[in-house]
Amino acid sequence: MRIPLRSCCIFRSFISQKQTLDTQRRGLSGAAMRLVQFRCRGDGDDVRVGVEQGEGLNVVDLKAFDSSMPSTVRELLQLGDKGLECAQRALASGQFVVERANIQLLSPILAPEKVVCVGMNYRDHCLEQNAPIPEEPIIFSKFPSAITGPYDHIILPTESQEVDWEVELAFVIGRRGKHIKESDALSHVAGFAVANDVSARDWQFKRNGKQWLLSKTFDSFCPLGPALVTIDAVKDPHNLGIRCLVNGDTVQSSNTSQMIFKTAELIAWVSKFVTLTPGDVFLTGTPPGVGVFRNPPVFLKRGDTVECQIDQIGSIINKVV
Amino acid sequence: MRIPLRSCCIFRSFISQKQTLDTQRRGLSGAAMRLVQFRCRGDGDDVRVGVEQGEGLNVVDLKAFDSSMPSTVRELLQLGDKGLECAQRALASGQFVVERANIQLLSPILAPEKVVCVGMNYRDHCLEQNAPIPEEPIIFSKFPSAITGPYDHIILPTESQEVDWEVELAFVIGRRGKHIKESDALSHVAGFAVANDVSARDWQFKRNGKQWLLSKTFDSFCPLGPALVTIDAVKDPHNLGIRCLVNGDTVQSSNTSQMIFKTAELIAWVSKFVTLTPGDVFLTGTPPGVGVFRNPPVFLKRGDTVECQIDQIGSIINKVV
Repeated sequence: MRIPLRSCCIFRSFISQKQTLDTQRRGLSGAAMRLVQFRCRGDGDDVRVGVEQGEGLNVVDLKAFDSSMPSTVRELLQLGDKGLECAQRALASGQFVVERANIQLLSPILAPEKVVCVGMNYRDHCLEQNAPIPEEPIIFSKFPSAITGPYDHIILPTESQEVDWEVELAFVIGRRGKHIKESDALSHVAGFAVANDVSARDWQFKRNGKQWLLSKTFDSFCPLGPALVTIDAVKDPHNLGIRCLVNGDTVQSSNTSQMIFKTAELIAWVSKFVTLTPGDVFLTGTPPGVGVFRNPPVFLKRGDTVECQIDQIGSIINKVV
Repeated sequence: MRIPLRSCCIFRSFISQKQTLDTQRRGLSGAAMRLVQFRCRGDGDDVRVGVEQGEGLNVVDLKAFDSSMPSTVRELLQLGDKGLECAQRALASGQFVVERANIQLLSPILAPEKVVCVGMNYRDHCLEQNAPIPEEPIIFSKFPSAITGPYDHIILPTESQEVDWEVELAFVIGRRGKHIKESDALSHVAGFAVANDVSARDWQFKRNGKQWLLSKTFDSFCPLGPALVTIDAVKDPHNLGIRCLVNGDTVQSSNTSQMIFKTAELIAWVSKFVTLTPGDVFLTGTPPGVGVFRNPPVFLKRGDTVECQIDQIGSIINKVV
């Protein structure tokens, strides 16, 4: 079923022959997609699901292609293969395209049931702070209210003087499960994104009985995006360059191969405790180069720009205000 | 708007004259209500909102009274006064009543954005463990997936040998806010409930880098209910007897007057960090008498029954399986 397009926002794309072929090839080659959530500028608060025609390119409006499709990626994932197949057909159609200039890109997941975070999960980050390599994952969390868009502002709270960056590979659960075996775990992954696990070090190390939650969960402390890159679109998620730049200077540069507990291990571990559901977001830990372990320590200040990059996935850029 | 009743579940109540008068008096006397969520037995997975005609009595089916009303208490709270006023009218109608025997009572809140927990918040509980009285609240969290119904089972995980009870006064946010002043905080409270902050002490004190999340968030580790008792129905939430019984033996018995940081202070504190939204659940800490600080320590075992009681609010009873 197709609904009429809203003229304010969407134009039927008369894209070149080459673009059409590329799109179709991508659409037909499996479930390799870049799912996004967006708002049309000047079109109110409506959240829409889109499929990027390529990193940073225009997006196909899923609900315009098929009005029976949901308005959020979380609900799309809840539909299972049916939802992803529809998104692939939408991409392959080359129609119902929204111009990049007309959209505000949101986090590809909003309001998940869980934001599961992993501490001390890069070998080189442990070495940086003379900490032992953990024998088990260290799991903490942010509230979903911390999530913000890939180009939104990080809001510096007056309650902290020590706000720090942490580029992280995020993955998103696509299929419900409990006590998931490591060998089966990757079938529960929808895809990957870039996250910044923004952290107030004063609250993390000196306050709140050393429980990390508050230090990690100020509003806007979880920039996420730019897209949910489906698992079939990432060759090897544990061999990706991962970088953080503050005001253009590279402050973190490592590779996801340094992760101690990898995607499948983390899913098996956490699902011993809790049922995982579609949309659950995991932040898998940060490499060395954070501000607090510099000599002297460096923290974010108003006006700074933080860019987090992961190869094959993309880049999120957030100004500190 | 009223919809036809489903005969399997609801009967038009021919309640006595006295009951009708009582119900109307309660309905007209303000927003004093006991909101519940329930399923009709044999009626599938549909969650419905109800208003109890009194603690443990039959419930009025809100959506049967007004089909425009939502199916969850969280959505009802999002409607603000309009939703609560409709619930009052439904209660006052004395109609659309579902017999208690025909319902399965669920937690009065499911899938909140946040379950905010407070540690070390009873003076007598601090004394019990020779711990100093905290100068600031200690905030941690459970994932919403830990919430279970007031009479559902607590599932003993094979991963823990030290599962403990903690009766707690819970409150639920009814109005969105950030940086809420203490003087204004109670206007953000929808009401109160009884919670059991079930805790795996081995995971709390010895594992996971001493981050409490995992120890507190196993599936079923947050029994909640039996109702969301609206704030107008509770005379003084900080002067209520609070008890926990294991297999009929009283193991915790205190008063909410022992709370160090009270409802308004907790809202003001947490809203410095995060935006609070309708449905957010706070667990406000436990009094002395938990199993881990007994000599010798006592933990829950399969077959135990845990009952948590708070005056004016009610009782939740969960079997350990």
